[in-house]
Amino acid sequence: MIPDSHVDLLLEGHIAHLATVNPDNTPQVSPIWVDYDGEFVLFNTATGRKKYRNIKMNRAVALSITDTSNPYRFLLIQGRVVEKDFDQKKARKHIAMLGIRYYGQEFVPPETEERVIMKIKPTFVHISK
Amino acid sequence: MIPDSHVDLLLEGHIAHLATVNPDNTPQVSPIWVDYDGEFVLFNTATGRKKYRNIKMNRAVALSITDTSNPYRFLLIQGRVVEKDFDQKKARKHIAMLGIRYYGQEFVPPETEERVIMKIKPTFVHISK
Repeated sequence: MIPDSHVDLLLEGHIAHLATVNPDNTPQVSPIWVDYDGEFVLFNTATGRKKYRNIKMNRAVALSITDTSNPYRFLLIQGRVVEKDFDQKKARKHIAMLGIRYYGQEFVPPETEERVIMKIKPTFVHISK
Repeated sequence: MIPDSHVDLLLEGHIAHLATVNPDNTPQVSPIWVDYDGEFVLFNTATGRKKYRNIKMNRAVALSITDTSNPYRFLLIQGRVVEKDFDQKKARKHIAMLGIRYYGQEFVPPETEERVIMKIKPTFVHISK
């Protein structure tokens, strides 16, 4: 569903902006790191975060990702969080890897944080070249 | 309400990601140009666009703006569209100016487009340094 021409935006360290809906039906949006497994768009967060709590109530999300070197080349995704992976070993390895990809060093979250890999199934995709 | 330390993110050509809520309570987000008049965060769109129609139904919006040269310095805003200015001469002059600010040349939208300056009153602001 993600066009080959724009898969790099999910795999090469471009910041994504993730929108969720607050319980009062207002929107929330914040920058995140993303990843892609060929089927799902992945991100890695901590339970307790605003975005995590919003998704628990309403699993619909949207992403806006511009090319770091050309903001007029972008990828927009609407979708649903269809799976959450709470395996701590896996989730911590994943966020460490994203740290390397995004800023050149492993990211190690506080021990007290419960990390989760969120899997988004895209339902609508729009690209700009 | 916008801290002095982060006003530049609204005034110096950094891409903003604007989130709105679709009628089915799913989120929508897309990159836009922004501006700031000291009180309201402004953006300039065309009537008929998805974001325009969403705001007509639900005026709550959110913005995520990362510094082009350092994505870990960012500004998050939640707010409401409290005013829409349909003065075509003003709106076209405004979008032409934003073109210069964002990519070095006047932006001239098609004659057929009705442009509108949307004014957002921030209700919640979060910064990362």
